[in-house]
This record gives sequence, structure tokens and C-alpha cells, in this order.
Amino acid sequence: MKIGLVGLGKMGYNLALNLLEHGHDVVAYDKNGNTVEQITKDGATGVHTLKELVSALPQPKVVWVMVPAGKITSDVIDELKELLVPGDIIIDGGNSNYKESMARAEDLKEKGIVLLDVGTSGGMSGARNGACMMIGGEKKGFDYLEPIFADLCVKDGYLYTGKSGSGHFLKMVHNGIEYGMMQSIAEGFDILNKSEFNYDFEKVARNWNNGSVIRSWLMELTEQAFAKDAKLDDMKGIMHSSGEGKWTVETALDLEVPAPVITLSLLMRYRSLEQDTFAGKVVAALRNQFGGHDVIK
Amino acid sequence: MKIGLVGLGKMGYNLALNLLEHGHDVVAYDKNGNTVEQITKDGATGVHTLKELVSALPQPKVVWVMVPAGKITSDVIDELKELLVPGDIIIDGGNSNYKESMARAEDLKEKGIVLLDVGTSGGMSGARNGACMMIGGEKKGFDYLEPIFADLCVKDGYLYTGKSGSGHFLKMVHNGIEYGMMQSIAEGFDILNKSEFNYDFEKVARNWNNGSVIRSWLMELTEQAFAKDAKLDDMKGIMHSSGEGKWTVETALDLEVPAPVITLSLLMRYRSLEQDTFAGKVVAALRNQFGGHDVIK
Repeated sequence: MKIGLVGLGKMGYNLALNLLEHGHDVVAYDKNGNTVEQITKDGATGVHTLKELVSALPQPKVVWVMVPAGKITSDVIDELKELLVPGDIIIDGGNSNYKESMARAEDLKEKGIVLLDVGTSGGMSGARNGACMMIGGEKKGFDYLEPIFADLCVKDGYLYTGKSGSGHFLKMVHNGIEYGMMQSIAEGFDILNKSEFNYDFEKVARNWNNGSVIRSWLMELTEQAFAKDAKLDDMKGIMHSSGEGKWTVETALDLEVPAPVITLSLLMRYRSLEQDTFAGKVVAALRNQFGGHDVIK
Repeated sequence: MKIGLVGLGKMGYNLALNLLEHGHDVVAYDKNGNTVEQITKDGATGVHTLKELVSALPQPKVVWVMVPAGKITSDVIDELKELLVPGDIIIDGGNSNYKESMARAEDLKEKGIVLLDVGTSGGMSGARNGACMMIGGEKKGFDYLEPIFADLCVKDGYLYTGKSGSGHFLKMVHNGIEYGMMQSIAEGFDILNKSEFNYDFEKVARNWNNGSVIRSWLMELTEQAFAKDAKLDDMKGIMHSSGEGKWTVETALDLEVPAPVITLSLLMRYRSLEQDTFAGKVVAALRNQFGGHDVIK
């Protein structure tokens, strides 16, 4: 199949290579011309505008959008909407908010364009060698592209999840779970690190990856991290986040689901962004006033 | 090697079969005579007292204790202490509190008996087919028994963790991490369940097990649970706990490690044990008083 690919970042570039390896033709666009040149050497047809990209595709045109969620995705899809015709398919493979995906699908449907909202997991190595995809949107779009999803994903690694929004919703919750699992692993190692025992964390993670209840890909990544840097001395414990954790918590609030672990995982990320906290000052000030406890200036 | 095994419960029985399969001789004791008879048919030498068990072993005598943590473990080891002689080795393979293991090792050392505190993970299937073990205690005891650990565990599945207590401490933290991972997975499915989308949870878990970031043995067990019962209608959401989660939280408090996710996982288990809560009544009573909000009688 001939696929248009918009966005050659960490995920998009690897997806392009994965598509090419499976014998598909890729017409690739990125605003960064160097990356376009690079992917051309790897066997894709590089183009420098969305218009060029759309022109190079046969009908029905299939455009895979793999750019950062939010305004960039929005702008790309708005532009594609003008260039595409009824029967064409847009895949949003990024981490878009599911509510935006639902609205976008509705909007595109008026013009007869199908939007598939595809949550993509497995990181860069997954994109390159076999990903996990959660696919929402009109079933006919999924049916048409199922061979592509089968090629890009590991066995049993793609799932048609139902109506528009369901793919990105599922990916959002996946990421929420990921936050909780990561924070739990992290707290465990924090306890080990402050304990009276002298553990080799790489060996501990390897031990846990072989036969234990908590064996997991995240624990394998933990093992690799400690293999590179035994106590992670070379980095700060600053934990950024990119939206899906926050949306999971917002969704839990809307649905009135008690989700303290996912919520606290997110809040611990926010805490990690601050070196000192205003809340800490407030508590210190109060302790000082009622108990005369020292305040650090 | 000829090993004495005390306790033929879910873990002990499977460990016995695992030992037998690897060509070791097992002298097995359980207070339940029927189980002793059963294991005899499976190839072990069944005995009906600890004294008999110890008599049947060559020097140095190796006794694997696989009974519930707390008083039962304590009583068994106290009795063994009287029966064993310097150079003998006791393995405590249960989930004993590491502080008790440290004190016990100290006490046994005075008599020249080595205690290995061995945290065992991987559940019943692990005990049967290849477990994960975290082994603390005198190094000479570990060195002598390393071939046994190698036989019982999956490749890279056993780790000598250092001084007495370090094995059970590591297993305790492993279980704390397990609590957090399980609660995070659970909250995610709770959000899916209350969402506007209609997911097949077995398929979702299978999808996540193939290529996603959160693929894990726990997610595989989740997949199996939903395969048996699509919405888990046949069970209540009551979550018991057996000590290690609480000890992890207590340890985090002692060490002043902020571990909100592991802590909340434990507290959610406690909450699940109560159908109604006194705390809920207090909040309802206050809302009623200041805002006239209805109270459910």
C-alpha cells in the first residue's frame, strides 16, 4: 500500500522504516527538510509540502499523521481536510485528547473523510520493530487498513476499539496505568536506596525480571537504566509529563472513579518539577507560629 | 541433595515437586497427614514430626521452612533450633518480616545454625516450574545451596542479596511495588468500565500485553481473569492483604521515603474491606449540619 506519513520525529521516522521494511511505499513529509532528505535515502519519497504529499497518493488517500498532539496535530488535519476528498482516510497516531478526536472525526465525516484515532504504544523500538496500537473510528476505515496495522504491530498487538475516540481514550488510560506502575517501581527502589541493605539495583531488577510477579517491560527498562548508571547519579529526578496522565485523572474525576494511585503518580511528577514549594513554606510558617519550630530561611 | 521441607501448602507442595523433578531427595512434613501421604506418592519421603524429618537428613542438614509467616514460622524454627546442630542450615522461604528474620538469624547463629531468609516470588506456577528468589543470610549458606536455588528458579531468577534480612526485605518491597502496580492496573480498568466506550477487557489486556509499555505478567493475569469472567461479575471487589504491603509502608515511614502510591494501594485495600465507613458517616453528618445536605439513613 502507498501511505502518506506526516511527521518524522522519534515515532514517525521509525514507523516509516517499519512500513518500508514491510514493502509499503511511503510518501513522507516533515517540516524539517533534513529529515525528509534522510528518509528519502532510506527508501521513502520525500516531499516538502502537505499538498505535494496528497498529490503523490492514489485514491483512497491514506495519510498517517504522527506529530505532537494539540495545535500541531490540529493544524495538520485542518490543512489535510482541504486537500482530501470523500473516501480518504486520516490516521491520527499521536496522543491526541480523545474528546478532540471525537470532534475532529465528526467534522471530517461531514466531508466524507474517515479519521482513525490510533493510540500507539511501545516506544521508539516498538514503532520500529512492532508496536501496539489501539484503533478507534469508523469500522470501514479500520477494515481497509487492517493489513497495515498487522504489519506494523507485534502479533495480537492491534485492537479495533470501536467508535471514534475509543482508541485515544484507551491509550490515555494505558498511559495513566503506566504512570502508576512507574511511580510504584520508583518508590520501591527509593525505599531500597534508603534502607540499611546494600543492593545492586541492576541485579535486583534483573532478579525481578526473571520469575517474579512484577516482571514487566518497565522493569526491564529499569534494569537497563541501572546497568548504565548504577545509582542514576548522572540525572536529576525531574519527571515531566505530556498530557495523557492529566487527562486520565480529569476523566477519573468526571466519571467519579476513585483513582488515587494514578492521581498521586501525576502529582508526584508535578512535585518533582519544583525545587522548593510554596505549600512547604505555608506549613513551615504555621509550625513556627503554633509550636515555635525553626524555619529554614 | 537431600532436603527437608516443612509445609506442603500451595507454595511448599509445588516447591517439593520442583525439587523432586530436579533429582533431589525430599523429606517432607506437614501437620496435615493427608498432604504428607499425597507427596509420598509423588516421590518424597513423608514424615509426621519435625524430629523424624531432621533424623532422616544427612549432615549438614538443610531444612526448608515454607509455612505462613508469623507465629507458625516462629514455632517451627524454634523447634528446629532444638533439633539441629552447628553447621546445619534453615531456609525460611516464607514472607517473614525482615526484622524478625534478622533477630532469628542472630539467635540461630549463636548455636552455629545458618538461617537464610529467602523471599520467593512467582506464585504457585513459579514454585512449580521456576521461581524467583531473593536470598539473604550468611554467604556460606548461600554458597552451599546455590545449586538448589539454580534448580528451583528460572535463569537469572535468584539473587544473593547480602546480610540476614536483606532477602525478606527485598521481597517485602517487591510486594509493595506489586500492590501499586495492581492498583494502577485496576484503576485503569475501572475508568474504562465507567467510560462511554464499550471495551472488551480481555481483548484490551491482550492488546496491552503485546507490544505496549505496560506489558507485564500482572497484565497477563488480568487478561486471564477477564477471559474467565468478562466483567468479573462473579466476585466481589474485596482486597485482602497479608502483611508485606503494610510492612513496606511502615518501612517507608521509618525511612521517611515519600511513597504515596504504595501507601494508597494499601489503604484502598483496607477501604475495600468495609461496606460502609465511619469516616463517610462523619463527612455526611458535617455536610448535613453546615449545608443541610441530605443524609442517607
